[in-house]
Amino acid sequence: MSLTVYRKAHFNAAHRLYRKDWSDEKNAAVFGKCSNPNFHGHNYELEVGVTGEIDKETGFLIDLKILKDIIKQEVEDPFDHKNLNKEVAVFKDLNPTVENIAIEIYNRIKKRVGAAFQISVTLYETPRNFVIYTGPV
Amino acid sequence: MSLTVYRKAHFNAAHRLYRKDWSDEKNAAVFGKCSNPNFHGHNYELEVGVTGEIDKETGFLIDLKILKDIIKQEVEDPFDHKNLNKEVAVFKDLNPTVENIAIEIYNRIKKRVGAAFQISVTLYETPRNFVIYTGPV
Amino acid sequence: MSLTVYRKAHFNAAHRLYRKDWSDEKNAAVFGKCSNPNFHGHNYELEVGVTGEIDKETGFLIDLKILKDIIKQEVEDPFDHKNLNKEVAVFKDLNPTVENIAIEIYNRIKKRVGAAFQISVTLYETPRNFVIYTGPV
Amino acid sequence: MSLTVYRKAHFNAAHRLYRKDWSDEKNAAVFGKCSNPNFHGHNYELEVGVTGEIDKETGFLIDLKILKDIIKQEVEDPFDHKNLNKEVAVFKDLNPTVENIAIEIYNRIKKRVGAAFQISVTLYETPRNFVIYTGPV
Amino acid sequence: MSLTVYRKAHFNAAHRLYRKDWSDEKNAAVFGKCSNPNFHGHNYELEVGVTGEIDKETGFLIDLKILKDIIKQEVEDPFDHKNLNKEVAVFKDLNPTVENIAIEIYNRIKKRVGAAFQISVTLYETPRNFVIYTGPV
Amino acid sequence: MSLTVYRKAHFNAAHRLYRKDWSDEKNAAVFGKCSNPNFHGHNYELEVGVTGEIDKETGFLIDLKILKDIIKQEVEDPFDHKNLNKEVAVFKDLNPTVENIAIEIYNRIKKRVGAAFQISVTLYETPRNFVIYTGPV
Repeated sequence: MSLTVYRKAHFNAAHRLYRKDWSDEKNAAVFGKCSNPNFHGHNYELEVGVTGEIDKETGFLIDLKILKDIIKQEVEDPFDHKNLNKEVAVFKDLNPTVENIAIEIYNRIKKRVGAAFQISVTLYETPRNFVIYTGPV
Repeated sequence: MSLTVYRKAHFNAAHRLYRKDWSDEKNAAVFGKCSNPNFHGHNYELEVGVTGEIDKETGFLIDLKILKDIIKQEVEDPFDHKNLNKEVAVFKDLNPTVENIAIEIYNRIKKRVGAAFQISVTLYETPRNFVIYTGPV
Repeated sequence: MSLTVYRKAHFNAAHRLYRKDWSDEKNAAVFGKCSNPNFHGHNYELEVGVTGEIDKETGFLIDLKILKDIIKQEVEDPFDHKNLNKEVAVFKDLNPTVENIAIEIYNRIKKRVGAAFQISVTLYETPRNFVIYTGPV
Repeated sequence: MSLTVYRKAHFNAAHRLYRKDWSDEKNAAVFGKCSNPNFHGHNYELEVGVTGEIDKETGFLIDLKILKDIIKQEVEDPFDHKNLNKEVAVFKDLNPTVENIAIEIYNRIKKRVGAAFQISVTLYETPRNFVIYTGPV
Repeated sequence: MSLTVYRKAHFNAAHRLYRKDWSDEKNAAVFGKCSNPNFHGHNYELEVGVTGEIDKETGFLIDLKILKDIIKQEVEDPFDHKNLNKEVAVFKDLNPTVENIAIEIYNRIKKRVGAAFQISVTLYETPRNFVIYTGPV
Repeated sequence: MSLTVYRKAHFNAAHRLYRKDWSDEKNAAVFGKCSNPNFHGHNYELEVGVTGEIDKETGFLIDLKILKDIIKQEVEDPFDHKNLNKEVAVFKDLNPTVENIAIEIYNRIKKRVGAAFQISVTLYETPRNFVIYTGPV
């Protein structure tokens, strides 16, 4: 009786796409206007899915208040109204593409919800571009 | 050549989360304001997915008018503008969490569409909380 | 230089439409399934608009954190996860139609934001039905 | 480290559902008002998903500018503001149901993105009806 | 105590933009791909607003079931799954731009709801293009 | 026969709220986390409304291709993927609140569409916060 519960959240952040070890020309050629050295930003919309067994006693898969708090602590507090390149340690050396941000969010939430659950992360960078990451295969 | 067709529907209902065999204090502790004895309610948004083979003659997987009628008979008519705890028999002894409502909807539709199709149920309790149930595994 | 700032919020509540001084038959005839004595419910989506002059110093019309707190205190705290007929005093004798709920919300917020601002209230009862109220004319 | 990147697009088109080898009566009986000989139309909303490995150097799974161009060339240019039955060759003899349109879009994009990627096509015919096709199984 | 109640509806239709008294070249020059002689189509999303006084007895401005029926009879039945140029009489000689369709819908509904109410029509031709018409000024 | 036509657009940008002539403490006290010196960002969603008379000959109020081009030249090209404080001249000395950005967009578009039309600007900074500006009164 496996089922997935989803909780939506969001955060606003600045970022730029680039690699320190590339020239400005190469960064501009590969990442285009996303590589603007003055940064740009997004309203990231996040959906976290938790898959597992329902607790027969409560009828809950997971208490959504607990999931909401985990998302707040692991994602909203450290990412919201921040410059991802400058203020989130992992992105100092890792390009903050929407792919890499989704994987980082997965890793942060996965280690908090316990081994009984599988996790999925859906992350919208714009209303037209998004990714889904469900963990290593 | 397997494909999934989805149909959206919705219903408005009152409910409360609680267990008869628990004290009011325990219900309040576990279910919080969702356990309000006077009930609260939601606009439930439903997406029913039907997976199967396309009929080569019509190009339809399933006639959506038939699926729409099944959803109306099995979900909208018995659930819409109702008090789930008081007026839907299964929830007299089963806590009407969004997880349990999704499973009940799955069971009702599954027995109507025939063995040739697999079913998925996506149920939004609020714009930020939803579940997906795809049947026993 | 007049402009309107909007803030969205939401609350979930149970209600029924009826008049105490009407028979059950008349309530059912006029209000249909919305008059179910066991209640039903909605996810109410709210947009509060505040019209006025921009503060030249800050570039804000109104600090949205203040508006957000007013909406929380005047609407979300007293209405969310409540039975409007039973738990919100004004609706003990006033039918909680979406029209009357919007007017009540207007009155509550209007008296908090000060005479320098005009208020508008947009209230969705379902994704397809909503009202806009901008005050007495 | 497999992940899926999605890109949304849309196109407006006219179509009708019918089979040349059926009588008007049979077409009307099976396809109802969708079989109107004068055509009707839709705003088709499309989501193309691309699943594969992330390029460690760029942090991209696929450059979304490239995916956007493929969708434009293979779907938007030939389908947008067109009559699908009359102006898209494959639908001269194949009923343009949303199922068949999704499969055609899948085939067009699949052959462009390369064998390293899996493709999914989500196609909304209306806000309430949509299909997902992920390829032959 | 004036207030506006809104009801959403939708219809799918084919159309083309052109003037009979213009050459094909001029139609193509002015209306571009919207002038395709084979037609294209849209999912039109409609919001009808009704402004007036609240009925103190019921708390309704207008019974939404009545408004829903008027929209069905005046708009959905004659427009849905139709070719506007060929099957809606007024558009045989009037270009079915979103502006002209909105005015036609206004006129049809206005004559049904009575002089006590003002009407507004919001009509989306695509998710990005829409018009609002509130009557002659 | 006055009517309003709307066109949606969007842009992604970084910004921070602050005044040069205030101390860091005062900026933080007034603007909170929006004053982060490293910037944050948003997906700004824009709706431009144009009010005027319909051209009887074409049935258009304004050719939407022209309006789309004006929005691209005046807003998308200069604002998209930019740092508003650093790269848009007017915001070097004017706090880029959503109020001030909406007024700037109004001014840019107003001078392009001609005196025959009135303009409205709706600007979403997040899905929950937005402003509407309709010009000086």
